[in-house]
Amino acid sequence: MKSKKIVITGAEGFIATNLIFKLSNIKGYNLFGLDSSIAQSSNKNFTKDIIKIEKIDISSSENLLNLIDGADLIVHLAAKGNVIESISNPLENFNSNAYSTLVLLETMRKANVQNIVFASTGGALMGNTVPPVNEKSLPAPISPYGASKLCCEGYLSSYANSFNINSITLRFGNVYGNFSSHKKGVINKWIRNSIKNKPIEIFGDGKSTRDYIHVDDICDGIIASITRLLNNKSHTFERYHLGNNQEISLIELSNIIEEFSKKTLLRNFKGLREGEVIRNCADYSLAKKILKFKPKKEFEKEIPKLYEWIRINEFNY
Amino acid sequence: MKSKKIVITGAEGFIATNLIFKLSNIKGYNLFGLDSSIAQSSNKNFTKDIIKIEKIDISSSENLLNLIDGADLIVHLAAKGNVIESISNPLENFNSNAYSTLVLLETMRKANVQNIVFASTGGALMGNTVPPVNEKSLPAPISPYGASKLCCEGYLSSYANSFNINSITLRFGNVYGNFSSHKKGVINKWIRNSIKNKPIEIFGDGKSTRDYIHVDDICDGIIASITRLLNNKSHTFERYHLGNNQEISLIELSNIIEEFSKKTLLRNFKGLREGEVIRNCADYSLAKKILKFKPKKEFEKEIPKLYEWIRINEFNY
Repeated sequence: MKSKKIVITGAEGFIATNLIFKLSNIKGYNLFGLDSSIAQSSNKNFTKDIIKIEKIDISSSENLLNLIDGADLIVHLAAKGNVIESISNPLENFNSNAYSTLVLLETMRKANVQNIVFASTGGALMGNTVPPVNEKSLPAPISPYGASKLCCEGYLSSYANSFNINSITLRFGNVYGNFSSHKKGVINKWIRNSIKNKPIEIFGDGKSTRDYIHVDDICDGIIASITRLLNNKSHTFERYHLGNNQEISLIELSNIIEEFSKKTLLRNFKGLREGEVIRNCADYSLAKKILKFKPKKEFEKEIPKLYEWIRINEFNY
Repeated sequence: MKSKKIVITGAEGFIATNLIFKLSNIKGYNLFGLDSSIAQSSNKNFTKDIIKIEKIDISSSENLLNLIDGADLIVHLAAKGNVIESISNPLENFNSNAYSTLVLLETMRKANVQNIVFASTGGALMGNTVPPVNEKSLPAPISPYGASKLCCEGYLSSYANSFNINSITLRFGNVYGNFSSHKKGVINKWIRNSIKNKPIEIFGDGKSTRDYIHVDDICDGIIASITRLLNNKSHTFERYHLGNNQEISLIELSNIIEEFSKKTLLRNFKGLREGEVIRNCADYSLAKKILKFKPKKEFEKEIPKLYEWIRINEFNY
């Protein structure tokens, strides 16, 4: 059987790097990466022997058509994912997320690339909808970042119907795991502060929750989506929440880090930040049914491993 | 009481012109218009004595900030509203609808303008969701035009929460009425063809339905929204479907035109066009409850009046 060409955008990113390792162990895929290098990740060093990554800004490149030509499927992970930065600069976020995705879809149409797996978000898309959310919940973004992802979902929906571009949108919970050194999420920041014996900042009263999901589990969901799209002949737009259906509060997270590291964390409480959701948690029943998605990684066991990974990779000891 | 400055975008448009006439009869509003003149409407001739309209492209003007400065509320009606054109050129439609709306929101933020009424769509937003749709229905656009409106709704939702810009999104049914000479909707096209004794084109089997709503009723909904926003002090994002909760098929529409005009319409059936929804109809219960919205105009009585208006204004006899 002819191998399938998979193009991964944001290929130097956190999730992409984990995905590239997983996909490289599966026969039948020919991987190719695109990345703007804006995020200044050094993940390319880890994957350089298994994938070629082309430096490209999707929204402005004249070369995109050539680069995706002949692809069977695109995994579109490139995005600016920071809620707080999207509030500082909504137009920049819009350009990187909404406009770039539409340019990619238009280019797919010209190149006759028919399948795309898209990385969306559960929390930012649903705003302060009471959890657990699922695919029947009404999107209600409270940040420009969340709005940018809703915009992309709308275009994917319309491109499936108007132009026969098949898509699966995956609404991720808060993803954590290795190869995240360029990320500024709360888990990574707090682990770094614990290693450096620095206090942590808690925005709000510490009862805010997130649905944390390990990057390995997310990658399994992406791979199941790739398989589903490549075996599907009818035009389709599907969306799934990929989470753990488990709420972990900031206080609980800080306690977990404190306990296994045996280092006291000084907690500085600050005001809630605009645009950040209070609670987030997704019911993944539909993904379980259709994609056979079932998170395997346990948070309490994985956080110490990530701690070690950050210690070794960022602090070199 | 100090009069309120209302800025209307797309001020030379079909709905805006009707709205300007209605608002000019209500005390306490100081009206100002913006329009790109791209749609080549001549409606300015009708309203020139009651409103000043500035020619401006929202997405690229450096003067927008000055023009909306001091406004109490913006009625954002400017958009490219043609589904078929959005399929021919999704990026152009995206720029006119999605990007321009974000630029407007960003400029409102800088100018500290805190209220906006936004014209969205029921049909294109909901795609082929089984009617009647309401505010709890999941958006599922099947055209780039529908996606562009979903994008705007998402940003309005996020701007209410992140930046305290209050908004009411009104999802219109298929609006018809006077001052629509630059429009290419099915009612206007068929009336013109009837006047010219030309055959009409029916895409599909003629059983496709739309929820037609008279522009007078739509304007009442807009005015109720203006009042609601100006009396509201908390930050909010609300959306309402404004329709008739009545499905009229293309066959029925052609019969109505044929009967009162006493002129036979030759019907040419053609294939369904990509991106066009099959059925559309909205339950307006929520708008009725909150905005006291209640359509007063009866379709069968209004179509003959529009027929006369088009005959006089477009055919000069």
